[in-house]
Amino acid sequence: MPDLALAVDLGGTNLRCSVIDRQGNVHFAINQSTGADEGPSAVIQRIERILKTAVEDQDLSPDVAIGVAAPGPLDTKTGVVRYTPNLVGWHDVPLRSELERRTGRQVILSNDANAAALGEYYFGAARDVDNMVFVAIGTGFGGGVIAEGQLIDGRRGMGGELGHTTVSLTGPRCSCGSVGCIESFCSGWAIARDGEALVRSGRGDAIRRAAGDGPVDAEAVAAAARAGDEAAHHIITSAGQALGAALANFTNIFNPDMIVIGGGIAQIGDLLLDPARESLRTYALSDLLEELEIVPSALGTKTGIFGAAALVLHYSHRDR
Amino acid sequence: MPDLALAVDLGGTNLRCSVIDRQGNVHFAINQSTGADEGPSAVIQRIERILKTAVEDQDLSPDVAIGVAAPGPLDTKTGVVRYTPNLVGWHDVPLRSELERRTGRQVILSNDANAAALGEYYFGAARDVDNMVFVAIGTGFGGGVIAEGQLIDGRRGMGGELGHTTVSLTGPRCSCGSVGCIESFCSGWAIARDGEALVRSGRGDAIRRAAGDGPVDAEAVAAAARAGDEAAHHIITSAGQALGAALANFTNIFNPDMIVIGGGIAQIGDLLLDPARESLRTYALSDLLEELEIVPSALGTKTGIFGAAALVLHYSHRDR
Repeated sequence: MPDLALAVDLGGTNLRCSVIDRQGNVHFAINQSTGADEGPSAVIQRIERILKTAVEDQDLSPDVAIGVAAPGPLDTKTGVVRYTPNLVGWHDVPLRSELERRTGRQVILSNDANAAALGEYYFGAARDVDNMVFVAIGTGFGGGVIAEGQLIDGRRGMGGELGHTTVSLTGPRCSCGSVGCIESFCSGWAIARDGEALVRSGRGDAIRRAAGDGPVDAEAVAAAARAGDEAAHHIITSAGQALGAALANFTNIFNPDMIVIGGGIAQIGDLLLDPARESLRTYALSDLLEELEIVPSALGTKTGIFGAAALVLHYSHRDR
Repeated sequence: MPDLALAVDLGGTNLRCSVIDRQGNVHFAINQSTGADEGPSAVIQRIERILKTAVEDQDLSPDVAIGVAAPGPLDTKTGVVRYTPNLVGWHDVPLRSELERRTGRQVILSNDANAAALGEYYFGAARDVDNMVFVAIGTGFGGGVIAEGQLIDGRRGMGGELGHTTVSLTGPRCSCGSVGCIESFCSGWAIARDGEALVRSGRGDAIRRAAGDGPVDAEAVAAAARAGDEAAHHIITSAGQALGAALANFTNIFNPDMIVIGGGIAQIGDLLLDPARESLRTYALSDLLEELEIVPSALGTKTGIFGAAALVLHYSHRDR
């Protein structure tokens, strides 16, 4: 296992690069905002420059590998980003080979949610466990699984799509085109959708007020619920109940030691998580709930960059 | 990896024991029916005797280990069978240590569905793949997963409970106490339940006829559907559609090379599996369906005994 990693976290709005050691110390960090319409070649050039800066600043030897956490379905076997909903013009971009050619270093590429699971496993809340499920509830619903110390991502590394598991055969339309995925019940956009529907129905005054001049988003729904609005409370409770059923599915499949919950929507806290815990007890096999720990992400907004570093610890000099 | 395995398949009605080599050749086989009310100590004595017969017949050296596939939630870390719905009086039975004490051999214990997945992986339909999902649709709905060559069974080996993953937050009551599990939609008892309800409602004449003098079971519903009865056809189609959604969940989580479908209910064939395939395409991420193979079990009723042998190939002389 190497001592140092070059970590790149490519998001829809920010590009981060850090040099992180195996103890989790950050030796170097850059954070740039990315123009939404830059396109892949501009972004790849930007990554190349930022990596060059890091290498020179830290005087890194050529065997320090690069871990890249990127959004969207990507094929870890070929290193190709299939497409990303949040970056314009990314279709079948050979990100890994491009970066390897430009830097002369080994590049390990994974999707952001699977990398984040590894981040929590190497540096965060799940350091002492062998079996863990990570879910990130933000605008969407991401996830990743470590089973017996191995990241579960399947034949082409495109697995671990926990957010797109169905909990309702006839549920709402999801961002992925299917229906009833847990993301369509419990995510920033799903809660905002239900808040907007309430406002349109004329029963959403509290949510409208909480949103102020801004759009009706999940935070406005949560604020109205906290202030005692029953309809808003019901939206958050329903999202939490669906979350619990999804966590029960992951529990019954993986018999994990720990479920780590991260992402901005998880910050809503017990208003969302209490109904989730109750629903988990309803839907999961009771034997599997013994000793199961449910904990918040220890890395918060840093799961992406620590996840990218963890890719290097986990995979460098292995075949992927 | 050892060359020979002593395989024990403990079921609700039959106890099988075989000596199987790593190529899948069966050198010895016994099949006994078990009395439903024998209780654990009688069954354990019976297993001890049957193993002694096999050892003497085959003149096996003491390092040939024993693989045991058993029903019910069981803790593979401690080797204790928690309880089994199909065997009377089994509560917290230390089956592994009892058999090790009595035989002086290493014993590897797993639940039948997880063992069956390993059976298909070592000896059956999934010999050339690294990532596979096995489902067994019989009276209940069992399953097991191999990811990157490892059986996914979690902290205490009680995972892989694919049949008890929810596909409907408000679905039917399941045998496990929860609601909306795939087993409550697509299993022998679920199809029989819907057939019985149809008969009670007065619209089930075709099913009643198909059942003859026997009870209304899944086979009667399937027979009526095959004979053109629309209401029976609808029951099977609905079960298939739910099955497809569950397979989509497993696909999105595991990005498998192959899904292997076994169990008696799967013998209903395309009547059940065509709607499942269509529903799988609706619910799964399309990237993950590329190259995914869906195949029938190659071992059929022998998954249990080959699964028990596969436990020895997979685990013997490893820590569990």
